[in-house]
Amino acid sequence: MRLGTLKGQGGAVLTDDGAYLLPDGLTVGDLLAQGLERTLEHGSTAARGSPLPYGPESLELPYFPTSVRDFVTFESHVEGVRRSIEGSPGVPEAWYDAPTFYFTNPHALYGPGQPIPKPERCHALDYEMEVGAVVGPDLEIVGYTIVNDWSARDIQAREMQVGLGPAKGKDFATSIGPWVVTADELAPYLTDDGFLDLDCQAFVNGERLGHDRLSHMRWTFAEMVAYAVRDSVVKPGDLLASGTTGGGGCLAELWGRNGERTPPPLEIGDVVRLEVEGIGTLEAAIA
Amino acid sequence: MRLGTLKGQGGAVLTDDGAYLLPDGLTVGDLLAQGLERTLEHGSTAARGSPLPYGPESLELPYFPTSVRDFVTFESHVEGVRRSIEGSPGVPEAWYDAPTFYFTNPHALYGPGQPIPKPERCHALDYEMEVGAVVGPDLEIVGYTIVNDWSARDIQAREMQVGLGPAKGKDFATSIGPWVVTADELAPYLTDDGFLDLDCQAFVNGERLGHDRLSHMRWTFAEMVAYAVRDSVVKPGDLLASGTTGGGGCLAELWGRNGERTPPPLEIGDVVRLEVEGIGTLEAAIA
Repeated sequence: MRLGTLKGQGGAVLTDDGAYLLPDGLTVGDLLAQGLERTLEHGSTAARGSPLPYGPESLELPYFPTSVRDFVTFESHVEGVRRSIEGSPGVPEAWYDAPTFYFTNPHALYGPGQPIPKPERCHALDYEMEVGAVVGPDLEIVGYTIVNDWSARDIQAREMQVGLGPAKGKDFATSIGPWVVTADELAPYLTDDGFLDLDCQAFVNGERLGHDRLSHMRWTFAEMVAYAVRDSVVKPGDLLASGTTGGGGCLAELWGRNGERTPPPLEIGDVVRLEVEGIGTLEAAIA
Repeated sequence: MRLGTLKGQGGAVLTDDGAYLLPDGLTVGDLLAQGLERTLEHGSTAARGSPLPYGPESLELPYFPTSVRDFVTFESHVEGVRRSIEGSPGVPEAWYDAPTFYFTNPHALYGPGQPIPKPERCHALDYEMEVGAVVGPDLEIVGYTIVNDWSARDIQAREMQVGLGPAKGKDFATSIGPWVVTADELAPYLTDDGFLDLDCQAFVNGERLGHDRLSHMRWTFAEMVAYAVRDSVVKPGDLLASGTTGGGGCLAELWGRNGERTPPPLEIGDVVRLEVEGIGTLEAAIA
């Protein structure tokens, strides 16, 4: 089941026949926080109503996560990015210990198609192709969405020298969408090891720069949740993002491999499109 | 004006005569998000009612911040901690650029007196003495509270090698309280440069280990807010914490200076008390 939010109308079940609004002003976030079973029940009931026509331009941010943890689970991303951002080769030994993450700004979220303002002082703007999992009340994964963790590489490189991780380099925008696909729909893509074997592609102005499979994560989403909750609190509605894929999941990885900023940083007018098998397409222009 | 939350009763104005509950189930967070003027108006109206007796044990988390940014604004803290956590001397040049911060877990907040569970794998538990500012709707500072950013130094040292900053080393607990003091009350402590000249003391089991002045911050709270909102979003109710004071604002600073883990890491049963002039006392035991 696909759950999205229609501009000015609210949460809806999205089907090929149209959009079915959720009853009683229920938001997609309210629904997901109740867990997979209740989400599917409520969604099925809603889908007995009459469908509204909708298109990609009708959709806004699918839901407001209660917090956003961004992990770093693709080894080839770490390798490439470290070379271009931190100037050091290889993967730190500690990376293999556990699925490390940071919390990003929960207030600067952008929906599908929503233009991303380029930070004024940024001369090295980048995209990051990721998949995010929405957690339910029993810490099970209720659904998945596409995440673009926009990054100002020049600002990030400088501030990360302080040791606290990225702040202004990433707090200006995170795109999420176009909708949330419930976990049951992606079950056919699960490998025996619990990874989702989804094809992921990133395009800049129509040219494919990134291509990887989500199953190249080192840890499963379930392992990420288990790590996040250890000695701590994960709440229903929290979004846990995979971290950037390899294979050109961001420009900085390619810069690290190429030894120069080729392809060039994003500029105003550029359009970035992320396509993830089984989920959909998340696109935005730089404004 | 002091605003706190009484266990099982809700938000209240706290005075020497007793506690005056806020009307209509209004929480302290609801009030603060309306800005200083409305907070003082509503609070004054509430204080015309009849006071309830209360003591330190009556109080819980004063309010739920919409997000928590933790800064690092004390130079002597950076210097000492880097030596013990990262094994490198001195302050990174980039630290002087701007008030860097990270987002911490908004779900693992503890109120005054609430025991802090020691993370199971942690053998180097530490406190961090800080002051936090609550932001209002016009990005003005509505009030201040004391913050203890509990830290698992061994876990933190290892995971920070990945470059994303602290995650499990700090996401298990942050204490906030005992109440929020509105900004007008602390105006007499403001220096000409806009710093709050408050005496800050940290005690472990009654022994004073930390002593610094809040005016030793390199950036004012207003400068921190301005930096946080640049190209981004700060919402009413967000908490911006000063970062740890110098002068023993945490054990790791002392470990760096002493070249060994003396005084020893916190153990179950230890009691940490933070006293900040003009605000109050925030105390918790390790459980």
